[in-house]
Amino acid sequence: MSKLTDVPKRILIGRALRSDRLGETLLPKRIALPVFASDPLSSVAYAPGEVLLVLSIAGVSAYHFSPWIALAVVVLMFTVVASYRQNVHAYPSGGGDYEVATTNLGPRAGLTVASALLVDYVMTVAVSIASGIENLGSAVPFVVEHKVLCAVAVIVLLTLMNLRGVKESGKLFAIPTYVFVGGVFVMIAWGAVRGLVLGDSMRAPSADYHINAEHQGLAGFALVFLLLRAFSSGCAALTGVEAISNGVPAFRKPKSKNAATTLAMMGLLAVTMFCGIIVLAMTTKVRMAENPATDLINHGHPLGSGYVQNPVISQVAEAVFGKGSFLFVVLAAATALVLFLAANTAYNGFPLLGSILAQDRYLPRQLHTRGDRLAFSNGIVLLAGAAALLTVLYGADSTRLIQLYIVGVFVSFTLSQTGMVRHWNRLLAVERDPAKRRHMVRSRAINAFGAFLTGLVLVVVLVTKFTHGAWVAVLGMCIFYATMTAIRKHYDRVAEEIAAPEEPDDDDLVRPSRVHSVVLISKIHRPTLRALAYAKLMRSDGLEALTVNVDAAETKALREEWERRGIDVPLKVLDSPYREVTRPVIEYVKSLRKESPRDAVSVIIPEYVVGHWYEHLLHNQSALRLKGRLLFTPGVMVTSVPYQLASSEAAKVRARRRQEWSAPGAVRRGPAAERAKEPSAPHD
Amino acid sequence: MSKLTDVPKRILIGRALRSDRLGETLLPKRIALPVFASDPLSSVAYAPGEVLLVLSIAGVSAYHFSPWIALAVVVLMFTVVASYRQNVHAYPSGGGDYEVATTNLGPRAGLTVASALLVDYVMTVAVSIASGIENLGSAVPFVVEHKVLCAVAVIVLLTLMNLRGVKESGKLFAIPTYVFVGGVFVMIAWGAVRGLVLGDSMRAPSADYHINAEHQGLAGFALVFLLLRAFSSGCAALTGVEAISNGVPAFRKPKSKNAATTLAMMGLLAVTMFCGIIVLAMTTKVRMAENPATDLINHGHPLGSGYVQNPVISQVAEAVFGKGSFLFVVLAAATALVLFLAANTAYNGFPLLGSILAQDRYLPRQLHTRGDRLAFSNGIVLLAGAAALLTVLYGADSTRLIQLYIVGVFVSFTLSQTGMVRHWNRLLAVERDPAKRRHMVRSRAINAFGAFLTGLVLVVVLVTKFTHGAWVAVLGMCIFYATMTAIRKHYDRVAEEIAAPEEPDDDDLVRPSRVHSVVLISKIHRPTLRALAYAKLMRSDGLEALTVNVDAAETKALREEWERRGIDVPLKVLDSPYREVTRPVIEYVKSLRKESPRDAVSVIIPEYVVGHWYEHLLHNQSALRLKGRLLFTPGVMVTSVPYQLASSEAAKVRARRRQEWSAPGAVRRGPAAERAKEPSAPHD
Repeated sequence: MSKLTDVPKRILIGRALRSDRLGETLLPKRIALPVFASDPLSSVAYAPGEVLLVLSIAGVSAYHFSPWIALAVVVLMFTVVASYRQNVHAYPSGGGDYEVATTNLGPRAGLTVASALLVDYVMTVAVSIASGIENLGSAVPFVVEHKVLCAVAVIVLLTLMNLRGVKESGKLFAIPTYVFVGGVFVMIAWGAVRGLVLGDSMRAPSADYHINAEHQGLAGFALVFLLLRAFSSGCAALTGVEAISNGVPAFRKPKSKNAATTLAMMGLLAVTMFCGIIVLAMTTKVRMAENPATDLINHGHPLGSGYVQNPVISQVAEAVFGKGSFLFVVLAAATALVLFLAANTAYNGFPLLGSILAQDRYLPRQLHTRGDRLAFSNGIVLLAGAAALLTVLYGADSTRLIQLYIVGVFVSFTLSQTGMVRHWNRLLAVERDPAKRRHMVRSRAINAFGAFLTGLVLVVVLVTKFTHGAWVAVLGMCIFYATMTAIRKHYDRVAEEIAAPEEPDDDDLVRPSRVHSVVLISKIHRPTLRALAYAKLMRSDGLEALTVNVDAAETKALREEWERRGIDVPLKVLDSPYREVTRPVIEYVKSLRKESPRDAVSVIIPEYVVGHWYEHLLHNQSALRLKGRLLFTPGVMVTSVPYQLASSEAAKVRARRRQEWSAPGAVRRGPAAERAKEPSAPHD
Repeated sequence: MSKLTDVPKRILIGRALRSDRLGETLLPKRIALPVFASDPLSSVAYAPGEVLLVLSIAGVSAYHFSPWIALAVVVLMFTVVASYRQNVHAYPSGGGDYEVATTNLGPRAGLTVASALLVDYVMTVAVSIASGIENLGSAVPFVVEHKVLCAVAVIVLLTLMNLRGVKESGKLFAIPTYVFVGGVFVMIAWGAVRGLVLGDSMRAPSADYHINAEHQGLAGFALVFLLLRAFSSGCAALTGVEAISNGVPAFRKPKSKNAATTLAMMGLLAVTMFCGIIVLAMTTKVRMAENPATDLINHGHPLGSGYVQNPVISQVAEAVFGKGSFLFVVLAAATALVLFLAANTAYNGFPLLGSILAQDRYLPRQLHTRGDRLAFSNGIVLLAGAAALLTVLYGADSTRLIQLYIVGVFVSFTLSQTGMVRHWNRLLAVERDPAKRRHMVRSRAINAFGAFLTGLVLVVVLVTKFTHGAWVAVLGMCIFYATMTAIRKHYDRVAEEIAAPEEPDDDDLVRPSRVHSVVLISKIHRPTLRALAYAKLMRSDGLEALTVNVDAAETKALREEWERRGIDVPLKVLDSPYREVTRPVIEYVKSLRKESPRDAVSVIIPEYVVGHWYEHLLHNQSALRLKGRLLFTPGVMVTSVPYQLASSEAAKVRARRRQEWSAPGAVRRGPAAERAKEPSAPHD
């Protein structure tokens, strides 16, 4: 269909890209930011609320600690961003925390990081979708009334989209992310104008409620512990910061510099939004409680189970823009969409990490193939299943889910930063240039501080949240760790077993010198005739046709037709009093091997190729079983001679379509050529 | 361990039988009777009660019709027994109703019978177990309080026993069946002695209740309809009568005569027990109602939902032997056991019929292999699943389940007897000997009457029970029929497609003249070295090793080792920018075929053989996928060269154990040699 009009079009929009390369264009910073930052930016939709929620345990008076907690989160955020800027420069291949920890701290640390990240991906899906539903619910009450159902529906939808392989583009990420960021900034600015310039008194919908403090007048250690817990919850704002360090190859050149700049921009945006929302929440007197039904009091009466506690961001938006106003609805929708996008990033990250782990033989080898649909699908389904399970178990309640969330992130932060310190130590041991050394010492200091601070936060998170749910995350990490260790052990054992010896050994001495071919025949039809013809081409040392006599009349007919057609291959008939097929063939093959132990036996099986799984149930089952048994017999090779039935066309078309599929998440990964460091192993 | 003491033992008890032949000893009549009759004999445990239950709708006065209904059942029983005695003589191969209908009435009638029988097997399990639980419950109240749970537990237990493959012996059937038959006869005799000689007044536990008739004083058509419905329910006593006609080969010689005698004995026993129980029920004034909770009245008050209506046989036993007496408990236990044995016969019959249908290509071919464990298991699980579903749906209520039961049996009776009439017609057309002709005419008359009567009953059953549940059975039959027709059509289409032409045609003219071999290599290790060695043995016209370059460093290392080891096969490297394995190989194979279309390509793949399914997930996946794709490529044959890892021993042991397994139900089937008529087809 190439027409003349194509030429101007080509000139105007450039050479047509092949569809499988579409995802591999490099990203400018303005697109890279939303692609990588939907996860960390979206967490400002729930993190501020979590802080207020925990503080409310000590009563509304504890709210005045919230700016200090926000400040602590800001310090932590800048530390983490500064640390990861070092990673981005040191590992431009996009190694990520797993590579950094493995290279510098050894495989156990690497595997710990990997386990933590896998758990983290599951939690990202569960928390982001739960929070997205709650934000959507502030504009559409139906959604929040059927929270679990809607959350699971979104998980299913994302799963199907990712399984089908959606074509991605930077725009898909850019539009909702920028709308969300813009909306929050407009809200903060408009709030400031109304409050400071116009002198309006903006009141959140929950401003008039009183909080029935669980522990009134907390002090001393108990208060410190509560503040630390509130801070832990606020740290949810940091999840996803590490994503850019994985994605360096997807950036335009100079890659590391652009990635570092994007990281800084992201940190600045996140921090501003986080603080802005906290301040607005204080100004508009948002009241959040852990158990709003009993602990929020209106005119002396608890609000009861009918009360839906909307997220802080939505309460603030209501106070600033007015309930049901256009901007309020737009912001609620953008918030939900960005949160769903954040969940979607886990759908890309989980199988990608799986493929890297598979290269290192911690997961089944077949997972490593880039964009392999089957492997990708297995990862997706595992992720979605775990996230859906947690969503249902925790009633799609983002507050309860967040207790499980932050452990994994900070395990990964801490180990990665510690690894970076080792990295600089190693380089400093050989580097002599004073200017470079100074630079390295500075980087090491940043990473060391990052490691210290994130390690401290990890301890705080573990201590304050372990019994609240973090133990589930730790358990999940242990399960991943144990499974991957077992898989790696298995592969190592096998590798040792099959290693080729440098000198010929016993195994080589008994290597067969001749081959005897046996073609299995049930009836004379095209598939068997083809198998016979192919077997003859192979010119083995002996060739015979083999049939099992399960029915005397049929065998007689077969013999007669054999002679009538003058087929020049001897036909051997095996008796089978119990109407079995497998056993007589196996025994015959074994007897051949016993007669002449130096001969190999080649068993040739005609096979039907059909197009549908249900047809497969109707054919080849005995052949498959026989093949399975034959593979256990030493000195045997098994050849399938396929005969394509007409219906096999359907399967061929399906296979071709499958091949053209491109894995979601490609846009974040960058072109294949850029990731040359990723090793791989072929077909086993 | 052969000791000297073995010799006298050998002399005393004969040569030791191989375990797989144990089930194949021929049965004397005294063992054959319980083996085949547990199903029809056990139905007297529920059939009399069903008659009373239906009659109760018209009030207790309708009970006086019960002897007439019993008489009708007796006449029907004698007719059916007489008819099947003809089958047994005419088809000593044990063809059964399916064969008789197919041979004489054509494949559609045969398939109808097969569908009916498959449904019937499901119902046998559901009804027998529900009734067994009710009988057991009359002695052990816990059981009846958890009816559904216990019934499903028994189904699960039977399923597991049958899946594991229990060793059967005639004794297993003989003891409970004879205890049951003996118990019922003692009960009848003792009841007669107490009633007629001692003049005791025996009263059933329900004797004092009044029945609140749903339709008091029914008359005319309505009464006739009710009586017909009661008769339909009584016909449940006839289920299983056809079993002996399937089992003729298992009998001692003269087979047909012995089978016919056993059939007559069974009929006589069943009829005597059925009538005895009905008479005792009338004497002891058993009161049964369809809805005992509302329709049974005690001192003016309905009994309420707490009342458990025990089966007639147990109420009679209580009246005759006394509640909780030793004989009462023995009879209850024997009744339950015989009913479970009856259910067990379906577990044998269902896969056996499946295997016969598979021979005729109405079911997947692999099901036909005698005693094939996998096929057998699928049948068992399907049967158990369907029976368990019905049990749960109908609350394990034998009365409600019986509504579905009798349709299938009578479809099969009617078509089989009609087939027999055709059979005699055919023989009479050629027979000239007057004595033989007389005999045939007599047989034909018996079968014709049998066909007429069972056909009439079928109509009665359909009319009176269709809306009560028989429609479910009819629907089940339709589903089986449609599925089997579709499978047969598929096989026929394929057979036509692959039929070998008498004269060489286009397909033969392009038959390849040379073969080019390609060995797939990932690394150099024992499996690949073995594959190379085997490939060399085959002496094809061209041989090369093929590797896919997914990682430049690894490929370089491979090339170097290849040269260092001096492997005398050229190594071809395929590039794969997208780190795929399958596509480059497929494309290379296609290019080979394009270069020289008259060459076949032989692809040789080293394969690991492992012992556990989870190890299988870790190996061979890429190889399997590649193989799957290669099979769709014309002109290719695919050879697996297995390398047995140490762990594969475990799988070998498992496979051997699996092979030594013998299918349950063997004892009913008789030795393989005796069933020479069963055709079969080998591996496809």
